[in-house]
Amino acid sequence: MKQVAIGIDIGGTNTVFGVVDQEGHVMVKNSIPTPKHGDKRQYADDLAEAINEVIDSVKQLNPEIEILGIGIGAPNGNYYTGSIEFAPNLAFQGVVPLVKMMTEKFPNLPAIALTNDANAAALGEMIYGGAKGMKNFVMMTLGTGVGSGIVVNGDLVYGHDGFAGEIGHYTVEPNGRACGCGQKGHLETYCSAPGMKRTAFELLAKYNASDSLLADKTFNELESKDIYEAAMKGDKVALEVFDYTGHILGRSMADVVSYFSPEAIFLFGGPTAAGDLIFEPTKKYMEQYNLPIFKDKVNIVPSELKMGDAPIVGSSALVWKELEK
Amino acid sequence: MKQVAIGIDIGGTNTVFGVVDQEGHVMVKNSIPTPKHGDKRQYADDLAEAINEVIDSVKQLNPEIEILGIGIGAPNGNYYTGSIEFAPNLAFQGVVPLVKMMTEKFPNLPAIALTNDANAAALGEMIYGGAKGMKNFVMMTLGTGVGSGIVVNGDLVYGHDGFAGEIGHYTVEPNGRACGCGQKGHLETYCSAPGMKRTAFELLAKYNASDSLLADKTFNELESKDIYEAAMKGDKVALEVFDYTGHILGRSMADVVSYFSPEAIFLFGGPTAAGDLIFEPTKKYMEQYNLPIFKDKVNIVPSELKMGDAPIVGSSALVWKELEK
Repeated sequence: MKQVAIGIDIGGTNTVFGVVDQEGHVMVKNSIPTPKHGDKRQYADDLAEAINEVIDSVKQLNPEIEILGIGIGAPNGNYYTGSIEFAPNLAFQGVVPLVKMMTEKFPNLPAIALTNDANAAALGEMIYGGAKGMKNFVMMTLGTGVGSGIVVNGDLVYGHDGFAGEIGHYTVEPNGRACGCGQKGHLETYCSAPGMKRTAFELLAKYNASDSLLADKTFNELESKDIYEAAMKGDKVALEVFDYTGHILGRSMADVVSYFSPEAIFLFGGPTAAGDLIFEPTKKYMEQYNLPIFKDKVNIVPSELKMGDAPIVGSSALVWKELEK
Repeated sequence: MKQVAIGIDIGGTNTVFGVVDQEGHVMVKNSIPTPKHGDKRQYADDLAEAINEVIDSVKQLNPEIEILGIGIGAPNGNYYTGSIEFAPNLAFQGVVPLVKMMTEKFPNLPAIALTNDANAAALGEMIYGGAKGMKNFVMMTLGTGVGSGIVVNGDLVYGHDGFAGEIGHYTVEPNGRACGCGQKGHLETYCSAPGMKRTAFELLAKYNASDSLLADKTFNELESKDIYEAAMKGDKVALEVFDYTGHILGRSMADVVSYFSPEAIFLFGGPTAAGDLIFEPTKKYMEQYNLPIFKDKVNIVPSELKMGDAPIVGSSALVWKELEK
């Protein structure tokens, strides 16, 4: 029998899911819209039906498949309660007890568990990726926001209530940029994709840089991809965006190192596609800010999970982690 | 048989040690100077002799004593290696393999272990104090510096190399005050006892406050106790020192909460003797900066370990923690 796990990633627009083998390969995948209607029961019915379809199709490929469980990554996903709790970007009101609902649908599966998407990414890295064998590491996800999954002594840091690891919302600049959460100066206002755009506009204003390749895009048009392309052409403003982002990210990582002393910090998400443009300044500034005892000890490396499938793969890792217990 | 543990705390001036029972009471204690000579072997000999003396005296009190081990708290103490490593405030050069040396002296003891002083304080709180039964909490020690012991999933966060938990050296104010480590704006430059003095002098300068009770002390004379006494008399500058310290400390705790989501944060050390003067603003500002999901969830409480004996008691807790394994 070939043992596999199902991974589900619930996003604001789509819910993607697939069957993942022990090497982290997605054998079959599909998606349904994450509904706008907010009917939790209906959503659970639709999701279960769609999952049964991918199970059927993978069993047609290989009848010797044994499905060991379902791992779910979701915004505001609480591992302890198995619920999505008050997720601001989903239509569901209050608490969605998704592990309970899926257990009712799939009563014979050995492991059904849920966590947030950044924690799922960290588990994916630990089970299938570059963090295999590591007991202490940090995964930082850069995207619309900044998330993190922190592994200490071989286990995720969930904290007392299940919501630990909100690195995106620690203060890197007192009285700094307004954050979507209502506070100021949080890491994600600088080092997310929108944060980089904000930096670009600050620098355009600072230098009155009408000759920059970024000077002809509106605030609503400019994307981090545009900043990358301009930087590759040598645009000074765009290059400084990467240096500035790397400066704040590297300083933050020195803080992370002081707290956790990890073996490595993995970076995942859109802005990491810029490669050396973002990794080099981040490494340089982290070392500059590191305490002497931590210098030249901690690697900053790109996630080994493939961008497209990573949310499914990461979520499926929860199943193997559950079965270790 | 009454089971007891030996706790040793190595400070820059003195090495204190004692025999501690399972309730955290110090039955017998003594101290020797921490030597200035830097001879590690001689120090181990002297320490072992002094410990044998307290063992003898406690056995005279109660012959039914069974000694289960030795726990050592030391600056730059590394749990993994059992060594003091490059401690800047001790005379010893390089690495002092103290667990190995003590194991040679006391080969029959079931548990001999070493960690840094803040981690020992956290274990003391967990074994004997207010953190009994807690799986996720943070101990912050305010003194000459700011240290921390962080407990996640019931175990200390040692990190990859044994040096995790350096909260005192995370950046709370970019380009802020000069830190002893060579960096700028670290937490301990604001929230240690010397940090509070620096705040007092900044405020005297800011307000040209010649009528303050603090205006007749030199920089080298002023102690945090003076600030406390002036605040109790209603001195405006002194009161603002506590508010300012609580502001930075509370904001830092909101960061700590975002990372770890602890059940409680314990505060230990000289400045906490000011009671409400420091706890009230710290709590107020932490709540102000907390993310909505963390509001009104995390207690900030004084350590239940008694100031005088805490270093011995905390270090002895390492023994019980080792024996749990």
